[in-house]
Amino acid sequence: MRMSKLVGRTIKETPRDSELPSHKFMLRGGFMRQYSAGIYGILPIGMRCIAKIEKICKEEMNAVEGQEIRMPCTATKELWEETGRYQTFGKDMMKFKDRHEKPMVLNPTHEEPVVYLARTEITSYRQLPVMMYQIQSKFRDEPRPRGGLIRLREFTMKDAYSFHANEEDLKQYYDRVYDAYNRFFKRTGCKNFVSVMSDNGLFGGKYSHEFQMLAPTGEDKLITCPHCKYSANEEISTSPFVIKKQTEVSMTKEHTPNAKTIELLTNMLKIPAEQTAKAVMFQTLEGVPVISFVRGDLEVIDKKVRTLVKSEVVTATHESIVKAGAVAGSTGPIGLNLNECYVVIDHTVAKSNNLATGANEKDYHYVNFNLERDFLSKLTESEKKKVIIGDIAAAREGDPCPNCNSSLKETRGIEIGNIFHLGTKYSEGMECTYLDQNGKKQYPIMGCYGIGITRLLPAIIEESHDDRGPILPLPISPFEIHFCVLNRKENIIIEKSEELYQSLTKQGLEVLMDDRDEKPGSQFADADLMGIPFRIILSPKTYAEGCVELKYRDNRSEPRKVKLEEIENILLSEIKDEYRKYNSL
Amino acid sequence: MRMSKLVGRTIKETPRDSELPSHKFMLRGGFMRQYSAGIYGILPIGMRCIAKIEKICKEEMNAVEGQEIRMPCTATKELWEETGRYQTFGKDMMKFKDRHEKPMVLNPTHEEPVVYLARTEITSYRQLPVMMYQIQSKFRDEPRPRGGLIRLREFTMKDAYSFHANEEDLKQYYDRVYDAYNRFFKRTGCKNFVSVMSDNGLFGGKYSHEFQMLAPTGEDKLITCPHCKYSANEEISTSPFVIKKQTEVSMTKEHTPNAKTIELLTNMLKIPAEQTAKAVMFQTLEGVPVISFVRGDLEVIDKKVRTLVKSEVVTATHESIVKAGAVAGSTGPIGLNLNECYVVIDHTVAKSNNLATGANEKDYHYVNFNLERDFLSKLTESEKKKVIIGDIAAAREGDPCPNCNSSLKETRGIEIGNIFHLGTKYSEGMECTYLDQNGKKQYPIMGCYGIGITRLLPAIIEESHDDRGPILPLPISPFEIHFCVLNRKENIIIEKSEELYQSLTKQGLEVLMDDRDEKPGSQFADADLMGIPFRIILSPKTYAEGCVELKYRDNRSEPRKVKLEEIENILLSEIKDEYRKYNSL
Repeated sequence: MRMSKLVGRTIKETPRDSELPSHKFMLRGGFMRQYSAGIYGILPIGMRCIAKIEKICKEEMNAVEGQEIRMPCTATKELWEETGRYQTFGKDMMKFKDRHEKPMVLNPTHEEPVVYLARTEITSYRQLPVMMYQIQSKFRDEPRPRGGLIRLREFTMKDAYSFHANEEDLKQYYDRVYDAYNRFFKRTGCKNFVSVMSDNGLFGGKYSHEFQMLAPTGEDKLITCPHCKYSANEEISTSPFVIKKQTEVSMTKEHTPNAKTIELLTNMLKIPAEQTAKAVMFQTLEGVPVISFVRGDLEVIDKKVRTLVKSEVVTATHESIVKAGAVAGSTGPIGLNLNECYVVIDHTVAKSNNLATGANEKDYHYVNFNLERDFLSKLTESEKKKVIIGDIAAAREGDPCPNCNSSLKETRGIEIGNIFHLGTKYSEGMECTYLDQNGKKQYPIMGCYGIGITRLLPAIIEESHDDRGPILPLPISPFEIHFCVLNRKENIIIEKSEELYQSLTKQGLEVLMDDRDEKPGSQFADADLMGIPFRIILSPKTYAEGCVELKYRDNRSEPRKVKLEEIENILLSEIKDEYRKYNSL
Repeated sequence: MRMSKLVGRTIKETPRDSELPSHKFMLRGGFMRQYSAGIYGILPIGMRCIAKIEKICKEEMNAVEGQEIRMPCTATKELWEETGRYQTFGKDMMKFKDRHEKPMVLNPTHEEPVVYLARTEITSYRQLPVMMYQIQSKFRDEPRPRGGLIRLREFTMKDAYSFHANEEDLKQYYDRVYDAYNRFFKRTGCKNFVSVMSDNGLFGGKYSHEFQMLAPTGEDKLITCPHCKYSANEEISTSPFVIKKQTEVSMTKEHTPNAKTIELLTNMLKIPAEQTAKAVMFQTLEGVPVISFVRGDLEVIDKKVRTLVKSEVVTATHESIVKAGAVAGSTGPIGLNLNECYVVIDHTVAKSNNLATGANEKDYHYVNFNLERDFLSKLTESEKKKVIIGDIAAAREGDPCPNCNSSLKETRGIEIGNIFHLGTKYSEGMECTYLDQNGKKQYPIMGCYGIGITRLLPAIIEESHDDRGPILPLPISPFEIHFCVLNRKENIIIEKSEELYQSLTKQGLEVLMDDRDEKPGSQFADADLMGIPFRIILSPKTYAEGCVELKYRDNRSEPRKVKLEEIENILLSEIKDEYRKYNSL
């Protein structure tokens, strides 16, 4: 390919609103352009990267006996109503009406469409296990699209769905996909990625993992143990925490004017945050208040609350707070109206003694509150049913590991893939059955497996760039060789560059030749912005020595002069070695 | 691949509402399933065919220096308003509102999105010519989806757009793509396809061609000359027709009670239809009546009327007819209110003498009407401006060829591709410019090039099937070899079949092994439904002779016994020859 003809111009200035390095470089390097919020077009060099990612992805999916299919982007409302998700997806699902006023949706994921197929195509245990996958556009009307291709409203995803006769078979297959994902990410050049346990969703299955690219700019907080193998998304992270047992002392009610936050309260009472119980107030989608309590130094994870109350939860409205009998700024367990609300109490509150907590009375808090003594023991049987004690706090850097008690680490990541045990939620929800050996109807047990194809490219650039641009791994680089031809005013340079370009191309090498009349500095800056790993430079000076200069985008070694007659073999051999390196990881 | 695990079951019965053979066989063979009207999912064997079509398509597009990109499926209303097509696409365009109530569309084609990219990325004449293409989902809310993948509401298309500095350069590139299309269709196994001249659209460019698969079930009527190279979609077909000159005689007004159709009128007057001028009434989108006249034996093509009046036209309402001063059933040129309507008169009416035509008076017609004498010569200058004489009739089987006067043929086709000269309609409409050698702003001249990827598979099956199923050309067949293993109760048969399967697969051959415990008849029927070109059969009987049976789906030669030790080499060599045949076409 000749750079003079390449669609996608490089940009010197940093584009507005591009905070992430990948976002900035992908715009500046001409990998993509924005159409509107969260909607991008992929330009030729970006598309070459993505096509390579897709190819490797298909190879790995085929290697675990995946069968490629193509499901539509659009679906009827009825299909999504079968599982109730037409409602629960809310505004994230893009909806429209067709010419006959029939309500339709743009599929945000494909569990429902794939079970629709399985329902007619999978009828016997003999067909199981089976996995179907596709690489297809997905649509999610994100409230806050960001980071270029990181969080889009329309994106390309590889999604796969497996069907099994029993849990053991699913677990085995899940582990095979887990390994395939590791291979896939390594083959595409990902370096610092981890798999962490992740949230299963409200009615999700028993286990799930996210693959996360470690990056300080990542949206997800991860909690990992450097000692054992524990690693989890913060959303499901857990810790026994450090709890100092104290002897219970009598509870008193204190006047605490304006102490509406834990910080103000602890300053006033001269106690540490660990000595308080903090309220965080939610409500279910039906509007039932859910008042949660956690030790004052910790944070509540809403998804954990959701799992315990078995319903989606959102932040409580003022109305809900009043209905629950809570007083904002002074909320505590004592005095809540348990006929009207749920109370969810974290383990840390249950295990600690002598906490300060709200009195549900403006400007008053209780001090030396003890959960069992001052609250639980005083409830009626029916009130007790509204109280849930469980794990709703997020672990933090330094907290003890739930497995081995070592000190946990906090880090950030970009989710690049996920694998889920789905169980029979969708097969049951949509009456998808097969006949087992005994001719009895059974629901297949499902797993699902996603990879954010368009997100992977910026995620890789996040971990692999310098201040001049991306440093792309060879397997996903748009070209293998960036060929800078300097000072094309001399005919011999044009002639020799054409000769070399033709010769390399004939060998099957992918060469981007900079055939523009640009100054060296400008050519090099553009080459840096494209991130191609191997670079050769032909100029009157190198030609006078019968050489080209060979450089590496990642500066793995110093640039060196290579004889014109040797460069082809050297490139062929180094590039071959490099591919071998990735494929044997 | 083992058939026991293949997703997509075969169906014995002919599915309801499947009229076309391809539709029926693609459902029965498990190539696809319907989700809702015009929305299908592609099952694994269908997907394997389509993936091969896409691969060949990319090779041919890359060979004409196409640069692959990926534009989004969604776009803002604003983008489509730049060219006015947000309105003119009407209900064929699927529209929705996002979570912020912003109006959005699902792109039915990508001229607007591609010019959006070109506007920022193509800035200098040095970059021209350039071509961008993608393979992507398109959305058109067809009022009458039909024929399975033939006419979908969501379909996969390869669309390409080229940009040029001058007409000559576009013409040269257009011809290259024309050749690439011919190669592509031949390489995918299309046999009876033709290119015909086609309609350019209202503001379209100067020339365009459709590639049509000849098929009696095709939706498009084609007019071709067996003698010269003339071939056109009926929509733009033309003929001088056979016109018998007569001596003009005096016009009379006749009472023609209830003679509201040409048939009733000719019966009553005992004249041939050629001796009449028939009215067909349209109106513009703004509601201006357009009354057209054609010789009574011919049909009016609305797209030709549209081109002459330079506005989209639809069938006239009763109101329009009254406004024009026309009387339905007795409409003629004389007495129309030319201040309120356009009159479009076909050449055949202008050239014929002594026609019968309506008197714009209930139950009355003129006989021996002569256009110049009885109508045109009596008009004022301003009235004359409302009369357009041109070519609005469709040629028919037997009419003279406009080029060579031979007798034209009528045939039917399925449109499988099209190439268009677009001119500067979109670049001007969207202010997309580049700087020429003199630093002057210019609008690039565009061409566009489409291939209906998902439609091509059924189109090929339409021309290539027997009464048992599709006969797929090797390059797009889901597998190369269908391997039927009969009577698997004998262990040695299982063992030998596994051995052969492994060995063929290791050679890189694509084998679908029927490893199910199905009766021979059922296995063969399923194999016929999948249409794979090479078939081998291993049974206790053939094994006893140390053989397999080798068959061809297209029955090119008789089935024959081949020694087990020879089958691999024979298949390798025959399959290699077969590919060579397609690639050298």
